[in-house]
Amino acid sequence: MKTKDFRSIVTNYKAVFFDAFGVLKNHKGIIPGVENTFDFLDEQGIDYYILTNDASRSPEALAQVYQDKGMVGITTDKIISSGMLAHDWLKLKIKSGRVAYLGTEQSAHYIEKAGLETLSINRLNLEDVDDIKCLVFLDDEGFDWNDDINKVINLLRKKNMTVIVANTDVNYPVNRTDIAIAIGGISDMVEQILGRHFIRFGKPDAQMFMFAYEKACARQPMTRDDVLMVGDTLFTDIIGGNKFGMDTVLVLSGNTLPENAKMKIRSTGIIPTYVCGSVASF
Amino acid sequence: MKTKDFRSIVTNYKAVFFDAFGVLKNHKGIIPGVENTFDFLDEQGIDYYILTNDASRSPEALAQVYQDKGMVGITTDKIISSGMLAHDWLKLKIKSGRVAYLGTEQSAHYIEKAGLETLSINRLNLEDVDDIKCLVFLDDEGFDWNDDINKVINLLRKKNMTVIVANTDVNYPVNRTDIAIAIGGISDMVEQILGRHFIRFGKPDAQMFMFAYEKACARQPMTRDDVLMVGDTLFTDIIGGNKFGMDTVLVLSGNTLPENAKMKIRSTGIIPTYVCGSVASF
Amino acid sequence: MKTKDFRSIVTNYKAVFFDAFGVLKNHKGIIPGVENTFDFLDEQGIDYYILTNDASRSPEALAQVYQDKGMVGITTDKIISSGMLAHDWLKLKIKSGRVAYLGTEQSAHYIEKAGLETLSINRLNLEDVDDIKCLVFLDDEGFDWNDDINKVINLLRKKNMTVIVANTDVNYPVNRTDIAIAIGGISDMVEQILGRHFIRFGKPDAQMFMFAYEKACARQPMTRDDVLMVGDTLFTDIIGGNKFGMDTVLVLSGNTLPENAKMKIRSTGIIPTYVCGSVASF
Amino acid sequence: MKTKDFRSIVTNYKAVFFDAFGVLKNHKGIIPGVENTFDFLDEQGIDYYILTNDASRSPEALAQVYQDKGMVGITTDKIISSGMLAHDWLKLKIKSGRVAYLGTEQSAHYIEKAGLETLSINRLNLEDVDDIKCLVFLDDEGFDWNDDINKVINLLRKKNMTVIVANTDVNYPVNRTDIAIAIGGISDMVEQILGRHFIRFGKPDAQMFMFAYEKACARQPMTRDDVLMVGDTLFTDIIGGNKFGMDTVLVLSGNTLPENAKMKIRSTGIIPTYVCGSVASF
Repeated sequence: MKTKDFRSIVTNYKAVFFDAFGVLKNHKGIIPGVENTFDFLDEQGIDYYILTNDASRSPEALAQVYQDKGMVGITTDKIISSGMLAHDWLKLKIKSGRVAYLGTEQSAHYIEKAGLETLSINRLNLEDVDDIKCLVFLDDEGFDWNDDINKVINLLRKKNMTVIVANTDVNYPVNRTDIAIAIGGISDMVEQILGRHFIRFGKPDAQMFMFAYEKACARQPMTRDDVLMVGDTLFTDIIGGNKFGMDTVLVLSGNTLPENAKMKIRSTGIIPTYVCGSVASF
Repeated sequence: MKTKDFRSIVTNYKAVFFDAFGVLKNHKGIIPGVENTFDFLDEQGIDYYILTNDASRSPEALAQVYQDKGMVGITTDKIISSGMLAHDWLKLKIKSGRVAYLGTEQSAHYIEKAGLETLSINRLNLEDVDDIKCLVFLDDEGFDWNDDINKVINLLRKKNMTVIVANTDVNYPVNRTDIAIAIGGISDMVEQILGRHFIRFGKPDAQMFMFAYEKACARQPMTRDDVLMVGDTLFTDIIGGNKFGMDTVLVLSGNTLPENAKMKIRSTGIIPTYVCGSVASF
Repeated sequence: MKTKDFRSIVTNYKAVFFDAFGVLKNHKGIIPGVENTFDFLDEQGIDYYILTNDASRSPEALAQVYQDKGMVGITTDKIISSGMLAHDWLKLKIKSGRVAYLGTEQSAHYIEKAGLETLSINRLNLEDVDDIKCLVFLDDEGFDWNDDINKVINLLRKKNMTVIVANTDVNYPVNRTDIAIAIGGISDMVEQILGRHFIRFGKPDAQMFMFAYEKACARQPMTRDDVLMVGDTLFTDIIGGNKFGMDTVLVLSGNTLPENAKMKIRSTGIIPTYVCGSVASF
Repeated sequence: MKTKDFRSIVTNYKAVFFDAFGVLKNHKGIIPGVENTFDFLDEQGIDYYILTNDASRSPEALAQVYQDKGMVGITTDKIISSGMLAHDWLKLKIKSGRVAYLGTEQSAHYIEKAGLETLSINRLNLEDVDDIKCLVFLDDEGFDWNDDINKVINLLRKKNMTVIVANTDVNYPVNRTDIAIAIGGISDMVEQILGRHFIRFGKPDAQMFMFAYEKACARQPMTRDDVLMVGDTLFTDIIGGNKFGMDTVLVLSGNTLPENAKMKIRSTGIIPTYVCGSVASF
């Protein structure tokens, strides 16, 4: 573990994978100075991808936020969301019938784009479940927790089906001090109460990294040593990147506070290759 | 493990502890024939207590259900609810300030009776939390899960305080086929997301059995061998009773289905002294 | 949470419950100055008990260590070990047959004293298990881990029986820097691999505190407010004491280091009434 | 879930991935009739790979067992062991220093082949750990559990390092009735006691399937629909295969007994595409 300036680290790699929240964005929007970093990467010819545990919005919508701030290199194909893995899975495995979901209509995009009929949990009738083939946890909004989480429990008791969790995060920040429970936290509770085993997509899982790595390799030949993973969370970004065989940078602009970083690395045994204050540059 | 008729078992004991749901009651109300069993116990001079993981209603309200069906021996002092343990704790440990809670106004009875000022989570203002001394999980109703569970998360991040879970059950039946998430399930999710350690009251915890045992001993001298615990759930009633040193009866009228009983006892290693179909008699 | 001198705290209570390791003893033996504290307690007429998660040695042997250092008030009846709870359970519930155990011959004392025939796991023949009624985890020494932990696994697969863990601790210090896996850690692995549910004795469980509290009340009338629990570990001593309704002191002479205490209290939500450097006095 | 004959299923796929133990082998060796199935696959031009959670022996040694029984198509390159993923990781990430391991000398092959200096945990001196870069859990044999598991605990307390678990299985069968704890079970205990997070290789992890899938695609173009995963364990083979997007067959010749299959699928929510008695044919 070596503390260094981000620019001096990144120039040793052919591609960078960034986590979004806590690295490029925070509750106020894009972190100031991040645009300079992307200019630098473009100048240096270093490729980049954004790997985000998010199934609430489409890759197009996710990319637009960066486009709006002038980071024109961050196009839709640079975004890898956990929702995309769920989408690919559904497209491959579900051939007919309806797919029930927890989330907003916007999040259901990931199912619809797979050519499948969607059914929001809040419109589900427990007497009419025969053609439901799969349940997907997409977003924590768009349904009534009191009624609809209990409806999910009874749907799964009534009809056994594969359950997909399209975002493994258990919480997310909503402002400087507060957090909210993410759909991954709700799915954990349901899984626990029923004793079932759901299929989860998102970091630290290897599929997320594989997806991005294949994209990067398609543009230029490289090995896993040539990729740098940048994240603010030891349990998702860093352990996932380490396991995949990439070098990793822990940044202190999000989930891991500067005063706790050393202690957390020590107590978890999750050791990033580097630690940086932030990826922003001026 | 011996399968026997309930009457032939119970006559060997001085006192019986009954779980309520799945043993004496189900979703339709008191199980028919249970009233005959209580007549029999009264005739035989066998003492009885009802131990229930419940903090939604007062012992008075819980007893009234039996009274209404003519079981006049089941008076308030025969009811031991997990809410009563929470009440005793609050009375002993909280001397001033407000106690926030998740649950109905009816469930807040357990806090008010301890002489404390209550504050429903749905009326809590996160800007005004200085005098909140404790948070209590009482019931799954009486608040908005979307808003108020997130409010709980941020309350505990803002102010460190002891958290009490007054019912450890994770779900409960609502009709012949469906279940609902109980407050214990919600508290598990919050604890998990925050990494905190809450104080839980309810079976299988020893305090519940100790409370009932002391009541029984006050009426007539006995040892733990003289008490029979009757329940429908291996993980709460039976393991709790076994650990406390009492003999135990698993009944098959609730949570544990006749076709699964043998396999569940084998796979969990939780072995009741006896197995009975039901405590009802005709 | 208030940081104060131990003497100024303890004078407000009628009885004190001490954890042993990290509070009164460390790897070098009795912590210097502890003997003065017991002189002070004797002078002030404050009653005391030692509650220890230990099933490796008899209460007599445990008391002798204090006697040898001149603390003559710490007699056998002042010691409450988790092994004693296991002993009481065995005496109450097992009437015949053999009891298999993991531990030293010295630890088997807790079974023998219950009038039962013991069988060390290392002498167990898997072809002759019919009369084995119970398995007890007592101590991490006295058997061959490679052979005998696997033997335990297959014993429990062959014959379903109640399993008792007589010490819930997962590790213990062996010198200034090193620790060793305790029998509670081994029992967790076995339980996990088999999917079984064992009966555990030891802090933070209520039975331990109840046992000591009844002894204290037998000497002089008191309520739970009158008792102070002193420990070095948040997860056993402090949460257990808090739940039982006693005031608690976290001391920083053992498991919880001075530099981490505040952060650990914050992150776990386990809040002692007081924090003290040590109970030793000069 | 449809119950069908294995031959009638497999002809719809371009490649098959087999789990080894419980599918092709059991405690007596290769399951009779399995050789006919491989003849059939060869005739039909269906490609096959063996995916095994095993780091105790080299792929060469694993392949030899099949060769010896006349299955000459099962060459070393058809074997994908979890040890191989560990080997690839070590080769990529560790450039110097020594790698400590738990396992036999035979299992250390996976480290040596990566060009690294190995050190068995039983030869490790805790006073000389500065150049140890990584610890690898390989096999449950080859070390003294009493001494060496405690040595592992203290090694990791002394020096923070990344820990690799080269086989996630928690147990394995040793004969018709008995099982033994596998290295994955020991690593779980160590991780739990220390509160660390290790890197695990083996099914159900995606990397295992990715490795095999890339090999299959290199021989002939295919998509994930063209691959059939065959296994005896819901929690590793089936959920892993389902998540990777392949069709799956649960066979009843190993871990999952015919009488429990339906109930286990129901209770876990892990649903194979097909269920077969066995892959053997005559």
